[in-house]
Amino acid sequence: MRATVIHGPHDIRVEEVPDPTVQQPTDVVLRVLRACICGSDLWAYRGESARQPGQRIGHEFLGVVEEAGPGVNGFAPGDLVVAPFVWSDGTCAYCAEGLTTSCPQGGFWGSVGSDGGQGEAVRVPFADGTLVKLPAAAASDDRLLTALLALSDVLGTGHHAALGAGVRPGSTVAVVGDGAVGLCGVMAAKRLGAERIIALGRHQARTDIARAFGATDVVAERGDAALAAVRELTRGEGTHGVIEAVGTEQSMRTALGIVRDGGSVGYVGVPHGSGTGVDLGVMFDRNIALRGGVAPVRTYIPDLLPDVLDGTIDPSPVFDLTVGLDGVPGGYKAMDERTALKVLVTP
Amino acid sequence: MRATVIHGPHDIRVEEVPDPTVQQPTDVVLRVLRACICGSDLWAYRGESARQPGQRIGHEFLGVVEEAGPGVNGFAPGDLVVAPFVWSDGTCAYCAEGLTTSCPQGGFWGSVGSDGGQGEAVRVPFADGTLVKLPAAAASDDRLLTALLALSDVLGTGHHAALGAGVRPGSTVAVVGDGAVGLCGVMAAKRLGAERIIALGRHQARTDIARAFGATDVVAERGDAALAAVRELTRGEGTHGVIEAVGTEQSMRTALGIVRDGGSVGYVGVPHGSGTGVDLGVMFDRNIALRGGVAPVRTYIPDLLPDVLDGTIDPSPVFDLTVGLDGVPGGYKAMDERTALKVLVTP
Repeated sequence: MRATVIHGPHDIRVEEVPDPTVQQPTDVVLRVLRACICGSDLWAYRGESARQPGQRIGHEFLGVVEEAGPGVNGFAPGDLVVAPFVWSDGTCAYCAEGLTTSCPQGGFWGSVGSDGGQGEAVRVPFADGTLVKLPAAAASDDRLLTALLALSDVLGTGHHAALGAGVRPGSTVAVVGDGAVGLCGVMAAKRLGAERIIALGRHQARTDIARAFGATDVVAERGDAALAAVRELTRGEGTHGVIEAVGTEQSMRTALGIVRDGGSVGYVGVPHGSGTGVDLGVMFDRNIALRGGVAPVRTYIPDLLPDVLDGTIDPSPVFDLTVGLDGVPGGYKAMDERTALKVLVTP
Repeated sequence: MRATVIHGPHDIRVEEVPDPTVQQPTDVVLRVLRACICGSDLWAYRGESARQPGQRIGHEFLGVVEEAGPGVNGFAPGDLVVAPFVWSDGTCAYCAEGLTTSCPQGGFWGSVGSDGGQGEAVRVPFADGTLVKLPAAAASDDRLLTALLALSDVLGTGHHAALGAGVRPGSTVAVVGDGAVGLCGVMAAKRLGAERIIALGRHQARTDIARAFGATDVVAERGDAALAAVRELTRGEGTHGVIEAVGTEQSMRTALGIVRDGGSVGYVGVPHGSGTGVDLGVMFDRNIALRGGVAPVRTYIPDLLPDVLDGTIDPSPVFDLTVGLDGVPGGYKAMDERTALKVLVTP
């Protein structure tokens, strides 16, 4: 089959690789219908996250079960399914608690020896624990299929951030980061009942989506000016919660600067760079909490799925460029240069 | 009157200062019956926290109302009261929410222009918002009076840490720090239903108190050995919650190292030193939350008071040395040299 392989910084290729097969009884082989490129893939693309030359890449996908191992109970060939960005066994204590990302048998798509999502097919370990079935009818609904793909990462990650930010009915929330996760954070905050949602961003295409997703205010300023602008919108206090969806020292500093005393920063931006931006003295004096991390998306899919299916929420607008498998390298370039927000891949 | 004054590092003196008077209608003048020295006072004593020469010091006290301003409704001369370590107006939005430490009119005892607790009397601003009445009979019960003094800081701060650590019935908790706050954290965790409480410490006098307060295990190791020991006690996982009651880079690193994936570190140690010990990458991968800060003790007193009055909890053992006002400088020395755990002052 053909799949995307990363050979080094800025060196993404689509190549012929071995067809995936059922190796363990609990495996499924899945034919990919939709995949996409994640903002976090760009850290590998830019060489900021280490990869071994030849690793696969891509961790968001949905598709159709092609073959199921003899130990798979919940899925059969032909089933339409979505995969979260981490596989998990579904049976350990962490999975039982919903922290599927800490499953001792879990792993990341594209790690050494595993398939990535940006290819024609994927071997899915622990299929019963990992996959979630989708209605077969969705396969013929192009818009819906794209919306459902967001369940594999960005929508669940935005939801995780909103929970970490402590969003409740009536909350005020600020969202740092205008990428797909930040925008899904806006959507998740609105879904959880936030009354006021302040999106920080300056690219109109993105802030337009933020408004469509539920942002009540947009702040285009950066740094200290952003802090002042958010405080001006909130009687000088800041917002009850902040969604931090970038992962840089500066974005964390901004998040801690605009959160109200006693509030929470829900952090889901993959931390990178040397500084953390975490000022414990500021957090201490103001009783600010920091909650979040890698989102246990598998746990959230059953909660979010009905709302996507019935159209209550539609994250599909975060995908603004569609490519075939051959277009994946160009898709990385477009996202790296910020000419595309999030690239949909139809293998 | 006589009160404790800090002139510089290691230069604590008891001096004649002006008698406090009612300056605002909402003031009370309080005659101090019991005060004490806090571990955080030592940062000023050691010169690690800046003080202007001549500032008063001490922020934990209880006593009898001597004079009440015309705007004070809840207190009259003769009332026995306890003061939290921060005053607050009791009327702002933050006070209404229980975050009294963020009251815009609030302040710290011993800040420039205010009295400190380690003296014969204190002018208490916003008395109705700040003070909590105690039963008059407690004044004649020496042991109880000492236990009630813990409500001014260490017991409420330990409780705040336990809440930040997410302690629930059945939780496993570790406590980093064997000072009075850490020990009160043990007590608070047990009160909230923790099933297993692992105290980190190596001074037997302190770990004996920890066991008496509810610790089920004591870990004497430090650094990596402490991590290994706690993990060995918890099936390799770590504890659901950790109380961080020190405030150094090393203690935070230990706290983050021994918390279970998905768990919380409740941090109440006043941050000091140059490094934070916060590794966001570790927190991100393991979904660790950091919650806490300066404890809104005023809010907790009504919750904790009944349990102290009826003897359900008795924090008085944290006070292991009693001095008169003249003995305060020696009390600082004893705590600095760790020959005393916490010094009670009877002016």
